[in-house]
Amino acid sequence: MIGTKVAVFGAGAWGTAFSLVLADAGHEVTLWARREEVCATINDKRENTDYLPGIELPPTISATHDHELAAAGAELVVLAVPSQTLRENLTQWAPVLRRDAVLISLAKGVELGTLKRMSEVIAELTDAGPERIGVLSGPNLALEIARREPAASVIACADDAVAHRLREAIHSATFRPYSSTDVVGCELGGAYKNVIALSVGMAVGLGFGDNTTASVITRGLAEIARVATAFGADPMTLMGLAGLGDLVATCSSPLSRNRTFGEKLGHGLTTAEITASTRQVAEGVKSASSLHDLARSKDVYAPIVAHVHAVVEGELTAADMLTSLISRETKPERD
Amino acid sequence: MIGTKVAVFGAGAWGTAFSLVLADAGHEVTLWARREEVCATINDKRENTDYLPGIELPPTISATHDHELAAAGAELVVLAVPSQTLRENLTQWAPVLRRDAVLISLAKGVELGTLKRMSEVIAELTDAGPERIGVLSGPNLALEIARREPAASVIACADDAVAHRLREAIHSATFRPYSSTDVVGCELGGAYKNVIALSVGMAVGLGFGDNTTASVITRGLAEIARVATAFGADPMTLMGLAGLGDLVATCSSPLSRNRTFGEKLGHGLTTAEITASTRQVAEGVKSASSLHDLARSKDVYAPIVAHVHAVVEGELTAADMLTSLISRETKPERD
Repeated sequence: MIGTKVAVFGAGAWGTAFSLVLADAGHEVTLWARREEVCATINDKRENTDYLPGIELPPTISATHDHELAAAGAELVVLAVPSQTLRENLTQWAPVLRRDAVLISLAKGVELGTLKRMSEVIAELTDAGPERIGVLSGPNLALEIARREPAASVIACADDAVAHRLREAIHSATFRPYSSTDVVGCELGGAYKNVIALSVGMAVGLGFGDNTTASVITRGLAEIARVATAFGADPMTLMGLAGLGDLVATCSSPLSRNRTFGEKLGHGLTTAEITASTRQVAEGVKSASSLHDLARSKDVYAPIVAHVHAVVEGELTAADMLTSLISRETKPERD
Repeated sequence: MIGTKVAVFGAGAWGTAFSLVLADAGHEVTLWARREEVCATINDKRENTDYLPGIELPPTISATHDHELAAAGAELVVLAVPSQTLRENLTQWAPVLRRDAVLISLAKGVELGTLKRMSEVIAELTDAGPERIGVLSGPNLALEIARREPAASVIACADDAVAHRLREAIHSATFRPYSSTDVVGCELGGAYKNVIALSVGMAVGLGFGDNTTASVITRGLAEIARVATAFGADPMTLMGLAGLGDLVATCSSPLSRNRTFGEKLGHGLTTAEITASTRQVAEGVKSASSLHDLARSKDVYAPIVAHVHAVVEGELTAADMLTSLISRETKPERD
């Protein structure tokens, strides 16, 4: 698979960092960016100064604003735009993709309204069957990946042979992917962890320490597993890198947008105030709503997502949320 | 259960902090300390200046160096001494304990040589049956508990009714215990997490970030669950507060002795050098040896504990350990 032509759609921090992984793995990468000035900086200065400053990009990565040019000949297509924009973008891109290209989603969210996972949106908008749709999820903070710190991840495809092939294709000296066929588990784990990270951020913002955040993470993972398995995920996926691993990395890192957003909610700012002051997207804010609806659609008990949704909507303060989650009757750990 | 007379043996940080939980829950606590000067400071200054400086102790906590005095009339006996000293200490204390007292172990380790868990050491040295032996384990950093930050924990006893009774007895406004009957899971989870915290500390000491530590935590929890279930633990216990929760708190916290010890190993110091410079005990250093033996006794695959053991023994550097753990062939996440 060395030397494959790959198109990466989306030049945010993660799209750019994953382009580096692909370049390190020996591929030729065309990175599509929404804004022309980002392309110019990447091509001229060999750096994505907006989203990944200080990281040098090799000549095997070139950038373009032209989606036809990006897609031309690409056997592997990586979708790295925010979840809520995937439908609009892919509607435009789908006609120019190769009919045999494998599509990998990097987005970690569930579409508002339709409550579809990203792989479902891809299946709806392209002619790709399950054997052409992959999902990458794991403890992968973009800046650390870009710095070549050792990291592991999960690449999932319903077709086991394709999952294996993708795993080999995206393996670099510092990026270690594991293959899986549990697309649902990887996608719901990735989306849900952002919501838990919001609640951990709130606890941090309110001044609580590691005992409290560890307890929220633990009950959060149980909730993720409960909801995801109701939709057919393998519970062990959630105990792995795409569940626990991603959750812990996101909740531990001051680099995480969702945790940072939660901290600001913990300080008493409103969703509107925080959104107005930041450029990057905190996926969990939208996912709190779609995952809340998703859990309710199958009557799954999901108290954390329900509470986070209420805080994001301004119906509850972060302090009241934590009190409500913690100060209940004592009981057995498992009912 | 309000107003029970409780003896807490061991006035380190956790013994003292848990005495506060018990006092907050309405009990009268006698805290036994090995050193007379610690008793004097607690009784005179209402503070354990050595291990929990800045935290005021209420008058319902008194300290003594006399183990008979501490045990006199105590219905609940809490054992909060380091794992490797429990046998020697309890041999001395056992004769003066009430015959109907319930004994709760706070120690998180496995005895060197015998490879016994603390509850097994207690059963061997006292006449207590399983219905009189409890184990407390969870994400409980002592200083945060002492500051009354909200925290949750698991209290396990083979006898479900006793577990429920203990749960009610140790419940305070900020300390939320869950009951369980899985004594083995709680004990092995508590001991093993210290070893994983050593390896996470090494990664931190070597300069790696949150992706790497999250990956180590994830593979570490899988290893904990594999070993513990081989000894009869319920895998779900390890996914709960006494497994995942405790692991995440310990690995996240700069307050953790085991993580800190691992960081120094990561900086290239030897076990002897680090031990010489610190007063507090890093349980994981000893547990790396006993858990390594325990895993081998049942032929369970436990690469992290094997590697940590080798580093602690000076047979491998921390850098070589991480390389060896990370740079293997890619494979499916689950075999």
